[in-house]
Amino acid sequence: MNSLTPFFSPHGVVVVGASHDPTKLGYGLARNLVLSNYQGAIHFVNPKGGSLFSRPVYAQISQVPDPVDLAVLLIPAAGVPEALIACGKRGLRAAVIGAGGFRETGAQGAALETKCLQIAQSYSMRLIGPNSIGLIDTHLPLDATFLPPPGPLAGDVAFISHSGAICAAVIDWARGQGFGMSRLVSLGNQADVNEADVLTPVATDPYTRVITLYLEGVRDGRRFVAEASQVARQKPLIALKVGRFSGGRRAVASHTGALAGSENAYNAAFRRAGVIRAGTSQEMFDWARALAWCPPLRGRGVAVLTNAGGPGVTAADAIEINGLRLADLAQETRAGLAAILPPVASLNNPVDMLASASPEQYAACLKLLLSDPEVDSVMLILPPPPMYSAGAVAKSVIPVIHAAEKPVVVALMGERLIQEAVEHFRAARVPEYRFPERAASALGVLSTRADFLARLNSQPAAELERLPGTNQILAQGILDSYLHQIKDSHKYIDETTSLTLPAEVLFSLLAAYGIPVLPEVLVGTASEAAATARQMGFPVALKIASPDIPHKSDVNGILLNLHDESQVEAGYRQIVENAYLARPQAQIQGVTVQRMAPSGQEVIVGAVQDAQFGPLAMFGSGGVEVEGLKDVSFGLAPLTSQEADEMIDSTWAGQKLRGFRSLPPADRQSAREVLLRLAQLAADFPALTELEINPLRVLPENQGAYALDARASLKG
Amino acid sequence: MNSLTPFFSPHGVVVVGASHDPTKLGYGLARNLVLSNYQGAIHFVNPKGGSLFSRPVYAQISQVPDPVDLAVLLIPAAGVPEALIACGKRGLRAAVIGAGGFRETGAQGAALETKCLQIAQSYSMRLIGPNSIGLIDTHLPLDATFLPPPGPLAGDVAFISHSGAICAAVIDWARGQGFGMSRLVSLGNQADVNEADVLTPVATDPYTRVITLYLEGVRDGRRFVAEASQVARQKPLIALKVGRFSGGRRAVASHTGALAGSENAYNAAFRRAGVIRAGTSQEMFDWARALAWCPPLRGRGVAVLTNAGGPGVTAADAIEINGLRLADLAQETRAGLAAILPPVASLNNPVDMLASASPEQYAACLKLLLSDPEVDSVMLILPPPPMYSAGAVAKSVIPVIHAAEKPVVVALMGERLIQEAVEHFRAARVPEYRFPERAASALGVLSTRADFLARLNSQPAAELERLPGTNQILAQGILDSYLHQIKDSHKYIDETTSLTLPAEVLFSLLAAYGIPVLPEVLVGTASEAAATARQMGFPVALKIASPDIPHKSDVNGILLNLHDESQVEAGYRQIVENAYLARPQAQIQGVTVQRMAPSGQEVIVGAVQDAQFGPLAMFGSGGVEVEGLKDVSFGLAPLTSQEADEMIDSTWAGQKLRGFRSLPPADRQSAREVLLRLAQLAADFPALTELEINPLRVLPENQGAYALDARASLKG
Repeated sequence: MNSLTPFFSPHGVVVVGASHDPTKLGYGLARNLVLSNYQGAIHFVNPKGGSLFSRPVYAQISQVPDPVDLAVLLIPAAGVPEALIACGKRGLRAAVIGAGGFRETGAQGAALETKCLQIAQSYSMRLIGPNSIGLIDTHLPLDATFLPPPGPLAGDVAFISHSGAICAAVIDWARGQGFGMSRLVSLGNQADVNEADVLTPVATDPYTRVITLYLEGVRDGRRFVAEASQVARQKPLIALKVGRFSGGRRAVASHTGALAGSENAYNAAFRRAGVIRAGTSQEMFDWARALAWCPPLRGRGVAVLTNAGGPGVTAADAIEINGLRLADLAQETRAGLAAILPPVASLNNPVDMLASASPEQYAACLKLLLSDPEVDSVMLILPPPPMYSAGAVAKSVIPVIHAAEKPVVVALMGERLIQEAVEHFRAARVPEYRFPERAASALGVLSTRADFLARLNSQPAAELERLPGTNQILAQGILDSYLHQIKDSHKYIDETTSLTLPAEVLFSLLAAYGIPVLPEVLVGTASEAAATARQMGFPVALKIASPDIPHKSDVNGILLNLHDESQVEAGYRQIVENAYLARPQAQIQGVTVQRMAPSGQEVIVGAVQDAQFGPLAMFGSGGVEVEGLKDVSFGLAPLTSQEADEMIDSTWAGQKLRGFRSLPPADRQSAREVLLRLAQLAADFPALTELEINPLRVLPENQGAYALDARASLKG
Repeated sequence: MNSLTPFFSPHGVVVVGASHDPTKLGYGLARNLVLSNYQGAIHFVNPKGGSLFSRPVYAQISQVPDPVDLAVLLIPAAGVPEALIACGKRGLRAAVIGAGGFRETGAQGAALETKCLQIAQSYSMRLIGPNSIGLIDTHLPLDATFLPPPGPLAGDVAFISHSGAICAAVIDWARGQGFGMSRLVSLGNQADVNEADVLTPVATDPYTRVITLYLEGVRDGRRFVAEASQVARQKPLIALKVGRFSGGRRAVASHTGALAGSENAYNAAFRRAGVIRAGTSQEMFDWARALAWCPPLRGRGVAVLTNAGGPGVTAADAIEINGLRLADLAQETRAGLAAILPPVASLNNPVDMLASASPEQYAACLKLLLSDPEVDSVMLILPPPPMYSAGAVAKSVIPVIHAAEKPVVVALMGERLIQEAVEHFRAARVPEYRFPERAASALGVLSTRADFLARLNSQPAAELERLPGTNQILAQGILDSYLHQIKDSHKYIDETTSLTLPAEVLFSLLAAYGIPVLPEVLVGTASEAAATARQMGFPVALKIASPDIPHKSDVNGILLNLHDESQVEAGYRQIVENAYLARPQAQIQGVTVQRMAPSGQEVIVGAVQDAQFGPLAMFGSGGVEVEGLKDVSFGLAPLTSQEADEMIDSTWAGQKLRGFRSLPPADRQSAREVLLRLAQLAADFPALTELEINPLRVLPENQGAYALDARASLKG
């Protein structure tokens, strides 16, 4: 038994702080419990005693008889610790804390919250809240909230929320929008139970078909991804994640660091887990209804059935915008339509039956479209038909929709004239939307979900098999020996110290993970540079070596294509002078010499440690312009090879690796390997806070890819 | 008097085809005219005669007595020409044709439509339709549609539509959403009157505060821009333009041609005219209410007033997404809030008054926020307050909102519990939306409108003053002499012929418009190339010269940086061989020699002739990757210098002209001039169907910009 089971299937609930006063939350909760027709035992506690809703009110928690396994505390914050102790002693292992006045109010409240958590843990008790409006299961049924009635209709959409106010609003709004809910949890301050904890318990509810989440953040990123991934295989998850702009930015040293905002991390995490991210509240619940009520989508071909041209054009646009396409109707379908419709009707998709379309014509045409193998889903558009009632059309098409194995969404246009149709469709659990744009967006989400499931099925079982030739022990040795050396030379280093790895250390680290690098040799004089270059073979490149100059080209610290020793000697002096003039304070270690790589395409491959989600890999257009161009994509490290492919293909830099016009195809395979290997390195060493190869030179097909320059920051 | 005046202020209306049969459109229109309380004369015509709604039914149009200046024809298509003749003879100069069965049904219908237009023109009669559901003025009042009642509420939003079904749906929907309309026109097939014609007549209505348009396209692009520009100075225009994906693509030869889809032309035209483009129907009317009801916005600082944290976070996100920002509240404002609110309320923006917030607290806090000079607008968030009714809050804040000179939008969360509040706000003409995201989008559109008006005020009166040194006569001479020469050598050239201008012609054309070019000399042998190069000075570039090779680098037809005569001779032979191997059929005229330009940044500057809007200029990242990178922007040519600036700054290529990291600032001024000059050239010569400089080399500041390569297509 999961430790959260008592929250969702309690045998008995005790309301601590139950009240006779209708303006008190303790009254509201007692009322909702009783009115919700909860079948378990209902107990009330209040020092004043007496009776409430024909039940005794106990003065103390210790007096509450069996069965009781869930406590809901609606008493002021200061009294909560004592009440929790009493609950613990009474043998309760689950409690909801309704009161505010904890962490959200400052240091004192935070201390009180910590105290509550410690008490709970000492009794192995799980807590929801504080600052939670409670939870609801419409099918058990159980309404353990203090919200004014009526509660939500029984339905199939679950809602998990970081905000109690949004819970209350959604309950009221969903009732108005005509869809029901299954389970609803207000998580409050999450002193104990958080969004990752409740996912599985909510998903196991057989009535829940879709889970929606209002998230202001995620506590433990990887755990959320792990839990959500499991759940999303079974049931769709839709998240509205807010707080995009609230986080302060930490200082960053690399392009990857600058580009990897927390939003990119959330997007990468949601993509990995199969969580669908909604942009607005309306979108989340528009999508939830389609996912809850429609059969799975099997392709992108949409047929539009309308009785007017304008809405059909609007629908056609919206369908393309949502990544779907108008289906090419089969010849027989057109013939069938022609037999039903007047001669001037449009038999092409969108099928315009004209304003005279009858309920019977709607139903017959819909049936024809659904049986067309080119058609994977249908959008039925219903402006008020001038000759018939929209309600009659609804009644006529609903049996056809129910019999279909393909999704049908309805765009109802208007308000009063379509009200009866709205009610028929809602009762029949057919998703209906005002105007075609929202209906198209609902089809779009069905397609997103289908893509996710297809990807799951195509993925090999061992998703994250380790690449051969990534030598973690060797890499650990390289880092340890460097840290050792640094600690010998410095007085004090702790976890807040950020070290820039010297080029030779970093390049050997990359080599330890099988990332091809062009050897780079650090030299300290011009003549040493010339000798080294002669040994490597011309032409060579020179780069300034300084821990204080992260972007070498900013100080003209790079010279390319030097063809002989005299050019190298002069180049050495020039680079050192450039660097000195640009950054007089910088510690200059010398210059590195590197043989020029054969020409090819250049990309950036990077990784950072995200505060929420840990290692995050990046791929895209490199060079100095990477931050301006923003042609980059992100994924949670380590990556599956499919994720690496998707990251590469979602950037222009990645697309053109396959060749573009006169640009020959490059060794995309090798670039992908470098991405996978760098992601693995970042995942294996969280101390590497930033890691970046820029550029990675990708040679023509089958000729490999080489890190030409790289940088990394290490936590001390 | 405008020839469209009779449509909007008729002295008398005759319904041709008025009917007793309630299932006929001719009955519906007669009924609506009478019920709408139209104060002019109402006449009915039907060969059967009799009486209808206590009025005589005339058998013939000729019998209709004065006053009558508008006819509405609700008779089958075949009878329309004859009826129009009768109307013309009776002295009518305005008619609405309701029937379908014209152009939309094919060639026969199109011929009938043309016939109707010819008849109308022979009587100087203006036509709306065919296939129009009619028009409405709620203030006159006049309802000349056949839609089932009730019509729209009287209000301030006008609606012009290409689709009759969408008119009908919008009327019904707007009533449900609680906002009124002013004028409404269904344009139907637009045989005569089109969207550009009705703009001014609709805008002159004093009751109309905002004009919304449902457009499936635009007939005459430049005329629409001219009319819309005039109207948008006075009243906001919002367009929902659909049919994005319906147009077939014509064959194109340049990057500019490939990128300049008709959507880019529409966006450029709307930007020029000040038309705000909505993405969805819901957005259009959400925006319309804010624009109609709010005072002008004067800055981007938004204060959020809420009684719960979650909706505040959602609002903060949505505000940033819409290009606004949370205002930093002044110290006095915080002090004032502190005096009103409980100690744990959040006095930072979003201001969270806590769930206990009373109607009086809402009003007092709102007043404080509105008087803060940092605050330019307020979003008031109202989830059902647990202790009070949302309706009471609405009543308390409405007077504060009415007294304010800053916009206040309301995000109401829920449905049943906020219904009373919704009704108060609607009656008070305060824009209210479900959830904060839509409210933020409404504030965003107020900001868009304010930016447009500010731009108008900052623009010099002579917007499109001609640049000095654009010699149209010289350019005409160059084109004429080229065409003359071509026509001498070819048998047959007509308007469908597309000619690729030879480099020397094109470069002299550019020079005639003051666009700096590096002289390019066409040579026919390797030794000629070497001699020419010696004369120009080394290093030089060689490029293949062939009318059949638009993209020279595709065939390795470019060699750069040749340092001496022997390199040039070898280069000549290599290029010609490369071109021959890649395109054996191409006609090769030789090779051009050009001195290498000093190094700098490279951009693309182009222009095409758009089918709807004429000359369209483009600016952006050039090179071979332009079509992949899509870092380009468009504007209607000729451009104002402000438009050129905005085009440049909206691309990454343009932004980095100001310098980026180690990249020194380039001569942005010169690049802008080239853009302006090329746009002028395209505007002056519509026969130049495509025109492109790629790359334009932009040297460091004050050193100019040079066209290194260019191409142009000329209509024969």
